[in-house]
Amino acid sequence: MITREQQKAAQKQAADMIREAGITMTDEEADSIEVADFGLSNLEKEGIQALALVQTDRISVKVLAMLPNQTVPEHWHPPVDDDPGKEETIRVLSGTVYFYVAGEETFKEGFIVEGKDDSYTMRKEIVMKPGDQLTLAPGEKHWFQTREGGAVMYSFSTIARDALDQFADPDIVRITKVVDA
Amino acid sequence: MITREQQKAAQKQAADMIREAGITMTDEEADSIEVADFGLSNLEKEGIQALALVQTDRISVKVLAMLPNQTVPEHWHPPVDDDPGKEETIRVLSGTVYFYVAGEETFKEGFIVEGKDDSYTMRKEIVMKPGDQLTLAPGEKHWFQTREGGAVMYSFSTIARDALDQFADPDIVRITKVVDA
Repeated sequence: MITREQQKAAQKQAADMIREAGITMTDEEADSIEVADFGLSNLEKEGIQALALVQTDRISVKVLAMLPNQTVPEHWHPPVDDDPGKEETIRVLSGTVYFYVAGEETFKEGFIVEGKDDSYTMRKEIVMKPGDQLTLAPGEKHWFQTREGGAVMYSFSTIARDALDQFADPDIVRITKVVDA
Repeated sequence: MITREQQKAAQKQAADMIREAGITMTDEEADSIEVADFGLSNLEKEGIQALALVQTDRISVKVLAMLPNQTVPEHWHPPVDDDPGKEETIRVLSGTVYFYVAGEETFKEGFIVEGKDDSYTMRKEIVMKPGDQLTLAPGEKHWFQTREGGAVMYSFSTIARDALDQFADPDIVRITKVVDA
């Protein structure tokens, strides 16, 4: 869980980063930024801030803002009914993103969140700079991370059903609980 | 048809506009910008420049750059096999876009390409500035235009099958012929 205060602070930080990355955004959009802690109550280490630009029953476009040294836990997008699962393209707008997928271990620049080796199993590293992009097939396991300065990126995808995403870490609850302190 | 020289000049102009709008793009991407005259051989008046960022069999993301006073002819995205047709969200990045869809006539700021009243039948006007967006359902007729300064916008959509788009103007051929002068 996060407090309302934490939520507001992360929204503001994300909004500043998104605007600095060159995206024009209304104040209403800035207030709609999702702050997710994946139920781990450790937002600064494992979390994400996401602005949804398009959310239909066919496609989704989000701007993801990651704070410095923040990690998005390992997850994948499973099939749902007739849908083979979400297909997602990440394209970096600002900062550097360390991306981890299946394949030969090339782990070098990133770090594993303390004590969580079993929850971060993909160790093929792809270092992404502004203008770089990659496409994840449905079901493809992935996690990603920033270092100093954080990063802003687009997520272009088929329909997003975030609540149905699957995670390597059994402690994760995808929907974040926000409490008034 | 357009000449190779026209194509290169429009690509360069579009690339400059896209970069000025804040998008990081490789030179290879800049060279891949599609310049389309819709077979009308009148690119400056009726045409579009498009950079495809994502093209899979499920989604498409393009950056559209329109030169000053350029018009994209009235068209719609028909059903194809099991697909109900392309669903498309336009989001403006820079400049002003004059967008025309079905509905009560509010035509005011735009202009009809000379002698082509019958090819531009949608007259409900939506003036779009940076940060504004609209979503077109499959089959929804639309055309759009810029004035001084041109404009840059995103097109986020389900799979794009441009060659199957349908147009109000019977003279249109969607695939542009480029000739070496």
